[in-house]
This record gives sequence, C-alpha cells and structure tokens, in this order.
Amino acid sequence: MNRIAISIASLLMSLCVQNVAAQTWIWYPGDYEIWLGNEMNNRRTDRGAYFPPFWKQDSHYVTVEFSKEVEIAASETISIAVEGKYNVKIDGRMLFGMPKEVQLAPGRHKINIKVHNQATPPALFVKGKEVVTDGTWRVTYEDKEWIDESGKASDTSVSTYVDAGYWNFNTATDVPSRFRLKTTRAEAIGSKDGIYDFGKETFGYLRLDGVEGNGSIEIRYGESREEASDGEHCETLDRLKVENGVVTDLCTGEERRVGETFVFGNSKAFRYVGVECSGTAKVQGVSMDYEYMPEVERGTFSCSDEMVNKMWEIGVYTLQLTTREFFIDGIKRDRWVWSGDASQSYLMNYYLFNDNEEVKRTMWLLAGKQPITSHINTIMDYTLYWFISVWDYYQYSGDEHFLRQIYPVMTAYIEFVNSRRDADGMLQGLAGDWVFVDWADKPMDKRGQLSFEQILFVRAVESMASVAKTIGEKGDAEKYERQARELKGKIKEFFWDEGKKAIVHNRLNGVKSEEVFKFSSIFAILFDTMTDADKETLKTSVVMNDDILKITTPYMRFYEMEALCRLGEQQRVMKEMKDYWGGMIQQGATTFWEKYNPTDSGRSHLQMYGRPYGKSLCHAWGASPIYLLGRYFLGVSPTKPGYEEYEVRPSLADLKWMEGDVPTPFGKVHVRMDKKTVSVKSDGGKGVLVIGGKRVDIPVGKEIKIKY
Amino acid sequence: MNRIAISIASLLMSLCVQNVAAQTWIWYPGDYEIWLGNEMNNRRTDRGAYFPPFWKQDSHYVTVEFSKEVEIAASETISIAVEGKYNVKIDGRMLFGMPKEVQLAPGRHKINIKVHNQATPPALFVKGKEVVTDGTWRVTYEDKEWIDESGKASDTSVSTYVDAGYWNFNTATDVPSRFRLKTTRAEAIGSKDGIYDFGKETFGYLRLDGVEGNGSIEIRYGESREEASDGEHCETLDRLKVENGVVTDLCTGEERRVGETFVFGNSKAFRYVGVECSGTAKVQGVSMDYEYMPEVERGTFSCSDEMVNKMWEIGVYTLQLTTREFFIDGIKRDRWVWSGDASQSYLMNYYLFNDNEEVKRTMWLLAGKQPITSHINTIMDYTLYWFISVWDYYQYSGDEHFLRQIYPVMTAYIEFVNSRRDADGMLQGLAGDWVFVDWADKPMDKRGQLSFEQILFVRAVESMASVAKTIGEKGDAEKYERQARELKGKIKEFFWDEGKKAIVHNRLNGVKSEEVFKFSSIFAILFDTMTDADKETLKTSVVMNDDILKITTPYMRFYEMEALCRLGEQQRVMKEMKDYWGGMIQQGATTFWEKYNPTDSGRSHLQMYGRPYGKSLCHAWGASPIYLLGRYFLGVSPTKPGYEEYEVRPSLADLKWMEGDVPTPFGKVHVRMDKKTVSVKSDGGKGVLVIGGKRVDIPVGKEIKIKY
Repeated sequence: MNRIAISIASLLMSLCVQNVAAQTWIWYPGDYEIWLGNEMNNRRTDRGAYFPPFWKQDSHYVTVEFSKEVEIAASETISIAVEGKYNVKIDGRMLFGMPKEVQLAPGRHKINIKVHNQATPPALFVKGKEVVTDGTWRVTYEDKEWIDESGKASDTSVSTYVDAGYWNFNTATDVPSRFRLKTTRAEAIGSKDGIYDFGKETFGYLRLDGVEGNGSIEIRYGESREEASDGEHCETLDRLKVENGVVTDLCTGEERRVGETFVFGNSKAFRYVGVECSGTAKVQGVSMDYEYMPEVERGTFSCSDEMVNKMWEIGVYTLQLTTREFFIDGIKRDRWVWSGDASQSYLMNYYLFNDNEEVKRTMWLLAGKQPITSHINTIMDYTLYWFISVWDYYQYSGDEHFLRQIYPVMTAYIEFVNSRRDADGMLQGLAGDWVFVDWADKPMDKRGQLSFEQILFVRAVESMASVAKTIGEKGDAEKYERQARELKGKIKEFFWDEGKKAIVHNRLNGVKSEEVFKFSSIFAILFDTMTDADKETLKTSVVMNDDILKITTPYMRFYEMEALCRLGEQQRVMKEMKDYWGGMIQQGATTFWEKYNPTDSGRSHLQMYGRPYGKSLCHAWGASPIYLLGRYFLGVSPTKPGYEEYEVRPSLADLKWMEGDVPTPFGKVHVRMDKKTVSVKSDGGKGVLVIGGKRVDIPVGKEIKIKY
Repeated sequence: MNRIAISIASLLMSLCVQNVAAQTWIWYPGDYEIWLGNEMNNRRTDRGAYFPPFWKQDSHYVTVEFSKEVEIAASETISIAVEGKYNVKIDGRMLFGMPKEVQLAPGRHKINIKVHNQATPPALFVKGKEVVTDGTWRVTYEDKEWIDESGKASDTSVSTYVDAGYWNFNTATDVPSRFRLKTTRAEAIGSKDGIYDFGKETFGYLRLDGVEGNGSIEIRYGESREEASDGEHCETLDRLKVENGVVTDLCTGEERRVGETFVFGNSKAFRYVGVECSGTAKVQGVSMDYEYMPEVERGTFSCSDEMVNKMWEIGVYTLQLTTREFFIDGIKRDRWVWSGDASQSYLMNYYLFNDNEEVKRTMWLLAGKQPITSHINTIMDYTLYWFISVWDYYQYSGDEHFLRQIYPVMTAYIEFVNSRRDADGMLQGLAGDWVFVDWADKPMDKRGQLSFEQILFVRAVESMASVAKTIGEKGDAEKYERQARELKGKIKEFFWDEGKKAIVHNRLNGVKSEEVFKFSSIFAILFDTMTDADKETLKTSVVMNDDILKITTPYMRFYEMEALCRLGEQQRVMKEMKDYWGGMIQQGATTFWEKYNPTDSGRSHLQMYGRPYGKSLCHAWGASPIYLLGRYFLGVSPTKPGYEEYEVRPSLADLKWMEGDVPTPFGKVHVRMDKKTVSVKSDGGKGVLVIGGKRVDIPVGKEIKIKY
C-alpha cells in the first residue's frame, strides 16, 4: 500500500516536472541561474573572512525584452507582475506607465514587454485566461529596433531571440529573486565541554538562545569534534560581541537585542559546534535551522547486505546536502559550483532525485556569459566535463529543447578550447590554466600533452558532434566528428607504451614519459577511446595492477569502479566499494568525504591542503555508490535519449538479493533480483532485460519475472 | 579685477582636475561609467511609458580585486570604506570579517581587497597616512589565483590587471553609487490658461504645491507652448490621481499626502508646462528643481556683433543642459548617449568646460563590455567616430594613460569592425547595422559601399594606428597604418566622378552611383583623405555648390562649417553661422535645435519623425558655434598632444573685434583681436601666433601684442 502511494506520488511529480506550468515567471535563459549562482558562490567564508571564487563572475542582462504573439477568441484581462522597471507594448503601441493589468480584445496580438533591472534578473509573470508567460515566450537582450526618420525600420533578423528560461515560480507573488531554500528546526543530540553534537553532518543557520552578559562569544564549527574544539585551526567560525544589551555579529555587523534568539545570517556546515564565551557572556541554548533543497528520493535501493544499505543511505544524505541551489562540491569549505564535481552529481542525480532543473541550472551557471576568459573554474578538465555532461543529460532526460538553448554557448566554448590547441591538435595547460586531473598522492607532472586530458578532449568533441547532429546542425556535426576522429586516432601513437602495456601519463616536447597513472586508462575504457582488446589489456595491466599508484579520492574511484563495471567486474567492484566507502563508514562517517586513504589513521583523516581540518567530510563526489548501484547493479540505463529505449542488465555480485527503483522520464523502473529470479516493472519506454545471455522485452506497467 | 579672479580660479580648477586626489574611491575602469550610464539611459519616457535603449546594456564586473604594494616608514592605521561585501588580505593573510580599520606595521606590505556587489559597482576607499586608494592601485575581475594541494600556486601572469578607475569621490562618505547631479529651485516667469512658462528651455523635476481635491491631474511638458497645450501629442507627460488625501503618480506608483509638495521623481525637459486638472483636483503653485552638472565655463567669447555673442551664449546653455552624467543627445526625448552626437560634444567641451572626466566617462560607457554584438548604438558611423574621438581627446588632453587603459577595448572594436569588411576591405551596412550619415531631406540610399563611411573608416583606422604608436604598440601601429593607407588609396578610384568633380554617394555591386551629397566631400576635406588640389575642387564643386542638397541638421552643418574654415573660408562661415544659428535665435530659440530648415515656418519647426513635436529643441549637436568660434576664429588649437605645442591662427572675419579664452591643460590661452592688432596671453605650452604670413612665438604668462 505504502509502495503504491509513493509510486503514484512519484508519477505525478514526474509529470509536473516535465510539463510547462500553466503560467510561470520567465527570464533570459541563464540569467537567473548566473545571478543565483553568484549569490551562492559568494557565501564562502574562511575563518570569518568572505572568500569569493577566483574566476570571472558574470551578470545577467540588465535589460531584456519579452515577446509573444497570441490569438484569443474572447477578450480577456491579463495581469502583469515584473521584477524591474518595465514598459508594455501591445500591437506596437506603448502603454502609459507600468500597467499591472491590460485588457486584450479578441483576435491576434503582439505583446512586447521590456524590463530593466540591475540588481536582480529582469523577470516577468503574465497571467490571463489564455495569455500566460511560459517557455514559449521569446526573449532578447538587444532588439536593435531602431526606426529611421523616414519610418524605415531596422532589420531585426540578426537580433538574438531565444526561448525564455523558467523554473517553478508559478504565482505572481512567488518572485524569483526571493527564492530561498527550505529550513526546519533541529536540535543538538547532546553537549559536552561546550561542544554541541548534532548527531551527524548537517548544514544551516546556528541559533543561540538566551545570550546575555557582557563579553564575546566564539563559535567554532566542526565536521569533527577535534575541529570544533580547535579555535586556532577550525575552518569556519563566527564571533559575537555582547555589550550593553546588544549582540553584534563581528563578521557581518548584524545586531540583535539580548533576549531575542540570535540566528546567524550565514549558513555553515558542521556536526559539532564549539561555543567559547569570554567575559560574562553566556549562551543558554544552541539549536539550528537545517537548510535544504526539497528533493524527492525517486531512486531507491536495498539489499541483503547492511553495509551496502548504509552506503546507499549515506550516499543519499551526502548528495542531499550538496544539492543546494546548485550542485556544489562540499558544504564546509568552498560551497562553490565546480564543473568536474557537478558532472558526477548529475549522474548520481539521475539515479536518485532525477531533478532535471537542478542539472540545467548548474550547467547554465558554469557556462556563464561570454567573453570566455578562462576554462570553467579555470580548470581545463572541467571545461571538457561540461561538454560531456550536456550529452549525458540528454541521454537521461531526452530534453532536446535544452540542447537547442545551450548550443550557442557550447559553440563559444568549443571555439575557446580549439583556439588553445597545439600543433598536434591537442590541449596542453597554458599560462593561467589549471590542469587538475585528481588530488593524487604523489607529484604529477602537469606539463605537455597529458593523455588524460586528450582522452577527455576526444569525448568532449564527440559530445559536441552528437549535440550538433541531434539538433540538425549537420555541418557542425561533421566538422566535430572529423576533429574527434583525428584526435582519437593519435592517442595510441602518442601515449601507448608497449613494454608496460599501458597509456603513459604525458608527452613533453615530443618525448613520451615513463610515468603511468590509472586515470587515462580508466577513461580510455569508459569512453571507448581504445579497442575492446586494448581495454581488456588496460584492465589487468593498469586498472587492477597494485603496482600503480592507488587512487585515494572518491572522485576518481567513481570512474575506476565504473570502468571495471563496464568490463563486467561487478563482483570485484562490490568488494572494493565495501572496503572503501565501507571503510569511511567504519571511521564514523555520516557523509562521504573529499578524500579517503584507508592507510591513514586518526586525525590524519581530517587534514588536507596542509591544514589540520582542510578536508571536506561531506563531498558530493563521495556519493557515487548511488550511481554505481543504480546503473551497474540494478543495471538500468537508457539506450536511446530520455529512456525512449533502455536496458536492464542487473548484477547481484555476492548479494543474496537486491531491490530498487531507477527514476526515468516516464516514472521509474523497478528491479528485484535474487539468486534465481529477476523481476522488473516499468512505467514506460521500450525496455529490454538482459540476463544470462537472454534478452527479454519489458512491457509497460506490468511486472515480469524471469528465472535465470 | 574680476577677470583676474576668474583666471586664478580657472587655473586652480585646472590643477585639481589634472592631479590625482590624495585619496579617492576606485573601481574597475569602465565599471562605474557603465553602471551610471545604465541609470541614465533608462530614464527615457515616451508619453509616460519607460523607453530603454535598443542596444545591449552591459553590467559592471560583480567581483573585483583591488591590490597595491606599499612601503611605509612608520606604522599607520588605514580606514576602509567599501561598496559591497569584501575581504581584506594583508601580506597574503585574510583578516577576520570585514574590517573597517587595519593597523599596518612599518615596512613593505601587499594589500589585496576583494569586493562583491551585484547592484552597484564594487568600489573601494582606503585612507591612511601614506596608504590611500588612487589610480595607481591595480584591479582585476579574475585573478585565477588557485593553489594546488601541494601548495603550487597558479600562474597569474595572464590574469588581466589594470590601473583602477576613479573620478572625484574623495571622502569615505562621498559614495560613488549615491552620485546625483546638483539641483536648484527655479520658478515660472508667468502662467496663462494653465500653461506655466519657465522663460527658457530648462530641465529638472516639476514641483506641485497645494494639490487638493479629488480627481486627476495631467502634466504636459512642452519645449514649445504648442506642445504644452497639446495633451494628445506632447512627447512627455505625467499623470496624477488625487483621491482621499493621497496623490499618486500613475506612472511610477509613488505616493504623497495631499498638503505635501509633490515633486516628480522623473526629471523632464521643458520650457512650458501645461497643467490640466479634472474632477475637483487643483494645484496651487508650480515650480521646479533645475538639475545640472556643475561645470566651469573656462572658455569665453565676446565680440562686436551681438548676434554672435547671443549665439555663443545659447551654445553654452545648450551644451550645459546636454552635459549631464554623460554627454547626451538632447534633453527632451532620448536622453541617451549617442557616439556621433557625443563626438561633437567632446570637441565643444574642449573649448568651453574642458572637462576631461566627462569625455572619458562617455567613451567608457559607449564602449561597454565585450562581447561586442553590434556597432555602438547599432550605428556603423558611430563606432567609427568613437575611434576618432579617442585620438582627438589625446590631442586636447595629452592624457596618454587613458590611451593605455582604453587600448584593449579599441582593439576589440577594430577586430569587430574589420571582421565585417567586404572583399574590397570596405564597410557596407550588414543586417542589423544602422547606416545613419544624417537626417537628410531626401531619401538616401544606404546600400553598398558609401563613400562617407569609408572616409570615416580611414580616419578611424588612422586613429587606431596613432594610438598604437603613441603607447608603443609598434606592430599594431604598422598593421593599422598599412590598412588605412590601402583603404585611403581606393577612395578616389571607387568614388570619384570626373564629370561632376565630386565624390559620389555610393557604389553598389561595383557600380558607382550618380548621387552626390555634401557629407563625404566635407569629411574628405576635414580628414585629408584627398590631395589639397582635390579638396579645393570639392569646396567649389560640392560644398559651396547650391545645386547639391542643403544640409539641415546642425550636426552635419558643424562639419560643413569646419571644412570651410580649414580652407580659409572664415568670412563665409561667419555669415552662414549668423544665418543658420542666428535664424534659430530669430525663431525664438533659447537653446539650439536638433534640426533647422530656414525654409520651414510656424509649427513645422517643431515636427520630426512624423510627430508634431518630435523634434528636440535642445540638442547638443546644435551648440557647435562654441567650437567653431574657439578653434577657427580665436583660432587656438593644439599641434602637439595636450597643448605641449599649439597654434593661434585668429580670424576676425567681418567682426570689428573679438576676445576670448580657450582652456588648455596649462590653464588657458587668451586672445584679443581687432582690425589692427592681436594680443595673446598664455598660461603654458609652446605656442606660435600665425598672422598675416608671420609666425610669432608666444611666451608663457606674458601678453604679447602684434600689429598685423
């Protein structure tokens, strides 16, 4: 009964997400996303100092024209709500003032509304009987609509008009710029020596009750008890002055009267909070407003192994905490949107929340506005992931409209990237570029042609070609296909070491290095950069070779596990997941970490970047079990965009049984498997169950049960 | 006595303008200008409807880093004022919170302050004993300052750092975003039939005293009595509702209580104001807050002819009214910054206010931010004037620093322009381009290669080359010199009609047209596009040829008069000025108009763009007598940048005597001339008086008197 209720709710939800609402606030696509992203990316603090990103932050277009041609049978009154100063033109005639209501006679009308707003994105909401704002309105930042003395009008054929952007602000009073995440009160589970414990990693606004006396109060936020106890080194902190009945936040200058509850204006990540009072200052009670993005857990997983269930659960909570206005990296330190990190969150999201809007919003923000002055987040690999993620998104969503909207931005980026190629058509880190790859445990040469970057580059250009082909840009598609093919053709020649049977790390001044890391081999397997035979070779000679440097970030372990799954190593992957993610759980993790080296111990688990608590203990890229379990154990994945066609290739590994849901645009696919049978039930799409060498068609809406 | 006082004041003023203030608010160059320009350009209304520009409006960088290395002998406390959220890093260490004061120990320090502000430009003011913000601070919108796990820092050598921008906000409380023009109360000189007359063209905020009753009030602003009387067609208007003791502005929604003085929030241009009350609504008194940019009239002119004196005076008032936050076109209608119009205001300004900041501010705004998506104001000619004006500015100011600051923007523009050339290396109007030239009285073919545009293009590229050469960009200088030379070499071949002894208007699909307008010949003379012999030919065959269509805008008459002056026709020009500008005065003008055709009569003087009061009666480009009298009659002009060297070539025409000052970076040059003698006194520079075939050196600070 409970299951049915959830399933109907999830179906309804999914319909709501897919449909354009009857009327909704609209804006220039990307504008709201960039503005909201600036709001978010500028909330980072470092020991009480504001700490903004080091890349260019863009702005929305400050004046935008919204237009729509309508035909109505009966007269109607439309009401207009606007964020900004505006004018209304009906059938070419400007109306007086800024009218809140306009009467339209029956017939065809041309509506043009121009909005100016510097502080927040120009946004429009129109509601009539038939005439409503939605994603079919056209928008431009520059209509070039001049009229000559003679009445000769300009040629607006070259002005850029695109479909409006929107999200889910569906009433006049649900104003986009006032968007806030939801909050709910939460209490500490206990306190000891001035350290309050909230039981698990959490995020929100600390609340202090009964602040009194005269003196100062220092708040030390800790993801660990050690951090909350260490005023000298905790990564985030707050300071209050209590004087003459007034409590002042020394960081922001905000003031409250003694007696009122003091709620900090800046949210923080913590499990523990150390409160140190000096003078006669005192605090009676500490609680918090937990802040979160409301998401529906559409994906589910449970199985016979409690450690694996725990892994799923902690993965879900980690992704929930890092799914905020956008997909961010981790909640404690940066709280920024990083393209590489986000590209993993997207994939996990497809198997949990399946929130398309969150994916698109993050991609718009990362793209920013032109001119492009650096790689995304300044990181070369991160620009390349961005292309790949656009194509991934289409596979899971089938949202061709987004491809059309984002394509001009993709074109600008590919031109930026291509303008930085060397004579071999490859990418080397130029001055100002950050070549990241991974936080590896030994120094990595970032000079010259890195095999890892070229393999990513091939896939990025392939993604560009695929998008171009999908939206009918045939010339572009051929051009990028050719580029990808040529580059792919050079990978083996440039980087293969026949003695080692491996892809070497890099090539500097035409000389292959001796160094081998796992990264490029993993991606060569994932992206089919090499033949199947080579991939099998790489699996044993590199990926499963214990002599090669171990990966210690969940970031790259994600791809390592995925590559092994692709080659049918689910059994081994299940074991490694239990060792690695299970290892964090055994260390007391309530969310997954930025980095985990099983050979570390005690406080060394907390340190990173040369700082004792530098490591983020709640990092999105830690949550990959969600994706791996959904995609490679339940085994569900689209084979045509938007699950129009899909496969279920379940793999039990050494579990006794497993069961779960994978969300799709049609609803979900439910899979249950034990050692003898598999049952599948799907809400839509043309599915095929692949098991024990057989391929069985999956009907819609009716459970099938197969013995294997 | 009076003259001496003025002269000292003017000298002091000039010193203040040249010097960097001890401490001043700073920002990313162009940011404040673009933001303030948006504020201004978005104040246009059309019969009560908000009317924004139709070109892309840009935004400031929302996060900016300010930095400076200092060395101090003694410890000092610096105070910090900021527009935005900020952090302070001293010697690489971030300080807690947003400190308002910081103590610096003696020695060298590196100060970095990052500011984020979406609504208004990030701006910084630091004041210590030695350490103060000024134009020597460095700023960037993207430092790319990442640090690797290993501590490896990024290569910031490619990050864009430039010198900070500033104006004259020299105290902590004089916050840039709160800048407002000055206002002063002014009264109507009389009223008749509900029409209030303010005596002359004016600009500001209307004030209504004693509004009472119940009903509505319509305010009709008129540059003419006719317009203020015509509720149906007046170009600007306001409407109030008076109800239950509350007065509501129906355009903006602002409310006041009955009994308070109602001051409109939107400024307007008018001489006459029609007040029409309905219901029982009543108004007791009408006055205004005249709004103006405080400018010093450094240039002066007086002579034996009262009409010419009047012309100077009205020119001065016209330029004063249109010199606002920026140089705008006219005060009634657009109130926008147009590059072509502004390029004339700059020139007039050099002979009147000599306000360099106003010139630079206007140029920054016009340039906007990249990407460049259209010509400046969408007009091809207007982009070309912008280049020419930068080089002109350097001649009058000697401000090489500005050339360095603006050069990257010039480069972006020349690349935009050059990317639009045809196979002949010429510019044709492409889709979306407005090819303006002038408001001519007969239809003008704008297709194909217009001779006018190519002549402007040559000069623009020459200006680019000169700027490049001045700041030491040798390679660029040679490239643009070559381009200009090649294009110049084609002008005669492409456009000369030997039969007509004229430059024809255009060339379409390789075929020269038969059409001849004056415009291209005028510019060929002004810009030395042709030989001296050809210029003399053009003077008689085209410019002084009554069979060619007469010019009826002061805009192009400016250049026509200037071309004639260049060829020594001052006598004729004085006569034409008295006919043309004198003609407007005889029609009752209190400021000069957008267009004037002496053959029009009555109401037809008021109409334009097919609207009865469409014409602007206070248009900056009307004020050119200021420039012509200073440059070609007093005869003062720089021959080396910044008046390091200059000439005085006075010309009395048919005047009995004339006398006046021309401002220079050193102070001014005073000239007095009658039919027998010329006297000159100069505050600086190496001057030469050219008169009656003689060249006499002008000493500094000592009047010379020459008989001729």
